[in-house]
Amino acid sequence: MAAKSVTKRRKKRVYLFHEGNKELKDLLGGKGANLAEMSNLGLPVPPGFTITTETCMEFLERKELPPGLMDDARAALRHVEKETGKKFGGRDNPLLVSVRSGAKISMPGMMDTILNLGLNDDTLQGMVELTGNERFAYDAYRRFIMMFSTVALGLDRADFDKMMDQMKEKRGVTQDTELTAEDLQELVAQYKAYFRRKMKRDFPTDPMEQLETAITAVFNSWNTPRAVAYRNFYKIPHDLGTAVNVQTMVFGNMGDDSGTGVAFTRDPATGKKDVYGEFLINAQGEDVVAGVRTPIKIAQMKQKMPRIYREFIRLATRIEKHYRDAMDIEFTIERGKLYVLQCRVGKRTARAAVRIAVDMANEKLISRREAVMRVDPQQINQLLLPGFDPKEKEQAVKEGRLLAKGLNASPGAASGAAVFDADRAAELGEKGQAVVLVRPETTPDDVHGMLASKGILTARGGATSHAAVVARGLGLPCVAGCEGIHVDEEKRLLSADGKVLKEGEPISIDGATGEVFAGLIPTIEPDLDKEKELATLLSWADKFRRLEVWANADYPRDAIRARGFGAQGIGLCRTEHMFMETERLPIVQRMILAKTPEARKKALDELLPFQRSDFEGIFEAMDGLPVVIRLIDPPLHEFLPDHDELLREVTELECKGGKPRKLKRAQEMLAAVESMREMNPMLGLRGCRLSIMMPEIVEMQTRAIMEAACNCAKRKVDVHVKIMIPLVGHINELSLIRKRLEPVAKQVMKEQGVKVDYKFGTMIEIPRAALTADQIATEAQFFSFGTNDLTQTCFGYSRDDAEGKFLLKYVEDKILPVNPFQTLDRDGVGKLMETAVKLGRKTRPRIELGICGEHGGDPSSIEFCHQLGLNYVSCSPFRVPIARLAAAQAAVAEKMAKK
Amino acid sequence: MAAKSVTKRRKKRVYLFHEGNKELKDLLGGKGANLAEMSNLGLPVPPGFTITTETCMEFLERKELPPGLMDDARAALRHVEKETGKKFGGRDNPLLVSVRSGAKISMPGMMDTILNLGLNDDTLQGMVELTGNERFAYDAYRRFIMMFSTVALGLDRADFDKMMDQMKEKRGVTQDTELTAEDLQELVAQYKAYFRRKMKRDFPTDPMEQLETAITAVFNSWNTPRAVAYRNFYKIPHDLGTAVNVQTMVFGNMGDDSGTGVAFTRDPATGKKDVYGEFLINAQGEDVVAGVRTPIKIAQMKQKMPRIYREFIRLATRIEKHYRDAMDIEFTIERGKLYVLQCRVGKRTARAAVRIAVDMANEKLISRREAVMRVDPQQINQLLLPGFDPKEKEQAVKEGRLLAKGLNASPGAASGAAVFDADRAAELGEKGQAVVLVRPETTPDDVHGMLASKGILTARGGATSHAAVVARGLGLPCVAGCEGIHVDEEKRLLSADGKVLKEGEPISIDGATGEVFAGLIPTIEPDLDKEKELATLLSWADKFRRLEVWANADYPRDAIRARGFGAQGIGLCRTEHMFMETERLPIVQRMILAKTPEARKKALDELLPFQRSDFEGIFEAMDGLPVVIRLIDPPLHEFLPDHDELLREVTELECKGGKPRKLKRAQEMLAAVESMREMNPMLGLRGCRLSIMMPEIVEMQTRAIMEAACNCAKRKVDVHVKIMIPLVGHINELSLIRKRLEPVAKQVMKEQGVKVDYKFGTMIEIPRAALTADQIATEAQFFSFGTNDLTQTCFGYSRDDAEGKFLLKYVEDKILPVNPFQTLDRDGVGKLMETAVKLGRKTRPRIELGICGEHGGDPSSIEFCHQLGLNYVSCSPFRVPIARLAAAQAAVAEKMAKK
Repeated sequence: MAAKSVTKRRKKRVYLFHEGNKELKDLLGGKGANLAEMSNLGLPVPPGFTITTETCMEFLERKELPPGLMDDARAALRHVEKETGKKFGGRDNPLLVSVRSGAKISMPGMMDTILNLGLNDDTLQGMVELTGNERFAYDAYRRFIMMFSTVALGLDRADFDKMMDQMKEKRGVTQDTELTAEDLQELVAQYKAYFRRKMKRDFPTDPMEQLETAITAVFNSWNTPRAVAYRNFYKIPHDLGTAVNVQTMVFGNMGDDSGTGVAFTRDPATGKKDVYGEFLINAQGEDVVAGVRTPIKIAQMKQKMPRIYREFIRLATRIEKHYRDAMDIEFTIERGKLYVLQCRVGKRTARAAVRIAVDMANEKLISRREAVMRVDPQQINQLLLPGFDPKEKEQAVKEGRLLAKGLNASPGAASGAAVFDADRAAELGEKGQAVVLVRPETTPDDVHGMLASKGILTARGGATSHAAVVARGLGLPCVAGCEGIHVDEEKRLLSADGKVLKEGEPISIDGATGEVFAGLIPTIEPDLDKEKELATLLSWADKFRRLEVWANADYPRDAIRARGFGAQGIGLCRTEHMFMETERLPIVQRMILAKTPEARKKALDELLPFQRSDFEGIFEAMDGLPVVIRLIDPPLHEFLPDHDELLREVTELECKGGKPRKLKRAQEMLAAVESMREMNPMLGLRGCRLSIMMPEIVEMQTRAIMEAACNCAKRKVDVHVKIMIPLVGHINELSLIRKRLEPVAKQVMKEQGVKVDYKFGTMIEIPRAALTADQIATEAQFFSFGTNDLTQTCFGYSRDDAEGKFLLKYVEDKILPVNPFQTLDRDGVGKLMETAVKLGRKTRPRIELGICGEHGGDPSSIEFCHQLGLNYVSCSPFRVPIARLAAAQAAVAEKMAKK
Repeated sequence: MAAKSVTKRRKKRVYLFHEGNKELKDLLGGKGANLAEMSNLGLPVPPGFTITTETCMEFLERKELPPGLMDDARAALRHVEKETGKKFGGRDNPLLVSVRSGAKISMPGMMDTILNLGLNDDTLQGMVELTGNERFAYDAYRRFIMMFSTVALGLDRADFDKMMDQMKEKRGVTQDTELTAEDLQELVAQYKAYFRRKMKRDFPTDPMEQLETAITAVFNSWNTPRAVAYRNFYKIPHDLGTAVNVQTMVFGNMGDDSGTGVAFTRDPATGKKDVYGEFLINAQGEDVVAGVRTPIKIAQMKQKMPRIYREFIRLATRIEKHYRDAMDIEFTIERGKLYVLQCRVGKRTARAAVRIAVDMANEKLISRREAVMRVDPQQINQLLLPGFDPKEKEQAVKEGRLLAKGLNASPGAASGAAVFDADRAAELGEKGQAVVLVRPETTPDDVHGMLASKGILTARGGATSHAAVVARGLGLPCVAGCEGIHVDEEKRLLSADGKVLKEGEPISIDGATGEVFAGLIPTIEPDLDKEKELATLLSWADKFRRLEVWANADYPRDAIRARGFGAQGIGLCRTEHMFMETERLPIVQRMILAKTPEARKKALDELLPFQRSDFEGIFEAMDGLPVVIRLIDPPLHEFLPDHDELLREVTELECKGGKPRKLKRAQEMLAAVESMREMNPMLGLRGCRLSIMMPEIVEMQTRAIMEAACNCAKRKVDVHVKIMIPLVGHINELSLIRKRLEPVAKQVMKEQGVKVDYKFGTMIEIPRAALTADQIATEAQFFSFGTNDLTQTCFGYSRDDAEGKFLLKYVEDKILPVNPFQTLDRDGVGKLMETAVKLGRKTRPRIELGICGEHGGDPSSIEFCHQLGLNYVSCSPFRVPIARLAAAQAAVAEKMAKK
């Protein structure tokens, strides 16, 4: 026992800042370790000391401060006094300190900071003399009394606020700043009297007593109910304890040789290498915040304080070298002495992030690998899409032009004349006018109008509604399901937030945030060719990544764009979108409603040339690269008119006794739609099920694909086509379809006299497919994870219903950590993927594995795909650069973890 | 080489029947081993021999019969001649033989039997004399020539049929039997001439040559394309080869001391221990089949052939003792000598199967364990449900009264007056009249009518339609989705198959087959109390099984019935079915449409007493046993009026300009329904999602459950309640709900001053729940597999859509081996269950695991549940006995496999 207690006594409880180091986070807390690091770096940090977290646990155990602690603190204070030339409790040049808690992990619910500790009536006078600012000194004193009373001793903050309010009322002013030094002096007296009344004693004037009380308060704050609850929630151990940081207060308002400011080592907006920031002479930090005086640029410091400026620039360089990143520095100058209060990695725009990373690598400050790791892939999306000019958008908000907020269905910003039908949008758009198509919801009939618009806004529909899916595919900004607006198609206007917008009036939508504004907001167009740093960074990323990045593209123009963005293949070409275009849809409907096999065949024969020509365009664009074409997937009723509208039409015609022929036609169409209608179309007759029940469509598609491939091959285009069967759940489905389609493929090659490289494979998008992937791999030459559907079936969520009805709320309430349709759920969906990878490779070791769900463009999901060992991710063309960067980061992170 | 060939020569190629034994299946084939066994048993089997499968492989290799084989065959024939006193090729008492193939595994595509081999013009005369029946002899000869020519030599059977047809035409007759001996003699001549023309040689008259050709043909038949394809499909090795069985023909038509017949060792209809069967004197098997003469009962043999009768009874006893089962025996008496041709395990009715098993165990012929294994669990369903009198049903079919066939949605037969609305059904039913409710489809509004009916028939809806689910729950026969009938509600009639049935006219439905008949068909009502043997068998089964059998019951009356059938608990009580009853539905609708929390609370307060009283009834019925109550599961729109009907109503009212108040009400209801409508309700806002978004309902339900439990406990009822949260996919859903409901449970117990045993658990019915069962088990005190939904999500099938649109076709075309909604899919759904069991037990080793999907009553699925180590299966009350037996069989099978 004796030995143990000796050991304990030997333990160092108090560390001067320069005695610690950044490795001692456990002992000194995050803030303490950081202050130690800055001190060791030789930065002029205001001196101070840290009381260890161990001391906190010791205190909590014995329920009192360990004996000798305050002696150690006193000894540390002596050092600080020596360094600063100030004296704790001294009248002439008083040392005032701040007392802060600082745990290993930053935690809300812990104690607020106490500033200006050490003030009493004596030291106050010293401050008045030093600053020549009585008002400032009394304000500091008043604040200290309030903070100490409420934060350290638990008195009611509201009572202090009330005294303040009464004072303002008495003086007939509304702002704190309007109170005079005398007013504040009177408040100090009132605060002290209040303290006496409540605490049955005088406010403590002994600085050491103040300090002891504050330290005790910090230790006790470790166990406030809020802090305990926070730790429980985030599973942080309860035995870490908090450190106490006691630091010299420095003041920038001690004359014209003093000041305060904030600077960045590089321009946070552009990334340009240049110290950038603002400061105020003879001022405190509060003055900057209050905005009473206008700060001046750092550059001007050169004239005003040349010595300080030179020192600051030297410091900034040293800081960047040490931290190896662009930093944000808080500083204060007290009577000609520069202090660095804080330095942190600086926040920056996407553009700056890219430039800083590339510049720093070129300056050899960091490696290229580090440069790649420095940029958030999500962020670079901003560089690739039009966005509102931030100032103009701010202005629009200020002017109250924000009409409503919908679903951020497809990113990018658009501004133009509101148009309420697709024909008009097409007409105006083709004339070169910027239009935004506004619809209750869109259907295949609207696609021509969408193509001619700058953006899409719908009042109904979720993230997988027609509008959202088509817009994302086209890279068009889209706000969907914006329930705050009401669209009156007949009157050609929308109303929202009490305002009415008629056709032709300007409207602006931000697809990245879901915001809808009245009026025009200028957008800034991206220009990838001008983004040279980004191109450099991505070229570096390409060297590190193992995953290939492919793109989802339904049309030749998408494929061309994707390749421009660096796509190494097409991972998903959805053939049914080709069916939806205006000139084709009537043929598709004739095919579906055909009453004889001959009639169906005739319609299919008409469709074939359309499909073939689309495929040829895509093959040409992707010359030399693989193209995965998915055979028809959606249920056929998606190509037919809306059921409810038909029902209404038939009922009306019956009621009004309209033309018998018209009625009969409508009734027949209604009957057809009803016969195909499903309770849960998502789980119904679609995908390969449809191909099994009605093989003619996929036979036509296979023929169109192979004819296109052969035509291209004859023109020396290097074609690698992969035919993908969707929605397979049982090996027998795949075998049967392959057995039907392979002869078609061979027949076409025979007819054309050319051989092309083709494969048959399947989507893994049904849990059962993942669970029996060993069986499925006997027939499938490749797998592509359809994680949209796999997420729907694994969770039992219909995305169309879930997002509006409960999913967003789930994410908001943290029932789910993220929206699983945006970021892959590793515990559930991920486990299915893992199983499929393992089983698939067991049967066919070199099987090609990819992902073509929306997750293919999400960085966290891409990391998971890398860990699973997939061959590629496929995402929308606009996300290809993001995916390239994310894939590289995943590879680098893996290597680093292995080290 | 020399040594090897010596070994080969030593190999025995030909086994007389009594030289083999039943273990030599590989060598002698199934049939050969069986004949050997019967011979060794001392049964008077017509003598013969078997050529081994090895010889077949030898033949196929060397492409000719091995040298010496025919010598061995000749030697064996000599033995047979000695035993029978007949001579192969002899004129006076000629030995005729049959030649049959016989592989180890019975296989279609192999060679047909050749009968009467050995016949030629000489031996024919012997047969004429012996039988005194020239017509018979020529007919046998004609058949032999045809069989030999087509089966052994590959001539075209159609040509022989043509000659036969021409002969009949010439004679002006239609039946073969109408031809005379002379006609047949002429046919023999034609057949021979045809043979000569085709084969360029005479029909072989040498019996040894006939035999050699037949043996060669049998061997060659191993490799017909059909046989090879069959083996490929069933993965049967190609190197097994077939044996050849050569057996003496015996004839029952050689005078009044001859005869032929079939007998069962016990009554196949009732199981009574009594030799049962029919025979004909002086006749061949064909005569029995032709039905020209009426056979006489075996009992009469006692008078007619006392010696043979005694011998036969002795034989039957010996056969039963040997085979340890009730056997079906084919026999022939040739000139006073009894031959047993075949004995097989006899087919029997469900009733007989049960009685035979129980009797045999009581007779110590088999063990009780064997008795339990002898009865097919599916079969005993027949004993527990009303069924049509088979003769009456046959009669109805003959009279053309079968109207249509629908889905066999709930087994049992019902007969009564057709009624077309629920109110009228309730009215008549309550008066005691037998009615069958016929509806286009049913809704909750129809339940009171369903309760009063004998059976339900709907024109639309699948196996999980409202009608089907409610009917199965009530144990009512139901034919659903019978698209062959058209129901005209207004005219109160149905039309089908060109017939019209008006209200009140009799109709009959068979829920086990889906058949619908016009007119009454008397049913046979089951009486479990009278099924004493079944009760005995089930009591034995209970001793062997490890799985408990619980029942799904929504109402007290179901619980009482379930307990009567032996249920050991309630595994699923669906609380929402209680909401659907007529008097409650309006309150439920008020609750759903409530615009203020107060209005909702008021409606819920009204519902509480209903729920509580149902729960009390169930707890009382299950005194001492566990009851699992599932909180509300379906989406709320299921309780509201049909959308399409509302849309039609609103459109009509708008058109016609009806009363404004009525229009407004309808519009409001339509708006409410539309706001709740979902694209895929199966994957939408239901289950625990609903409870999270609208917690008031489950809070009320928990209160009702706990109040009921407390009330019962006060009355000394022993309550064990398990509250089940449906559709959990993420642990956080369960934690949140449990955190809300546990206080309600505790509060009620505090109010009531009683403690009851209660637990919270969850359904595992979403793939993600199974995949993260380790997490979920931290909160769930029990799991119940909801395999209906788990099958839907694992396959991505909506049962409502799939069964009608493609699933039945999938099963028909063998794309799926079985309907996964009837029999658990072990590869996919089963793998999820296995994962959940493993992970769940990892977290909570003693967690109680059960299944409450429909699979809980399916024997194959029960076996799988046993193998998974679940604690119980829960099924509809009527399937409890089936499950008890199936569970026992699974346990016994497992034990046997381990031995």
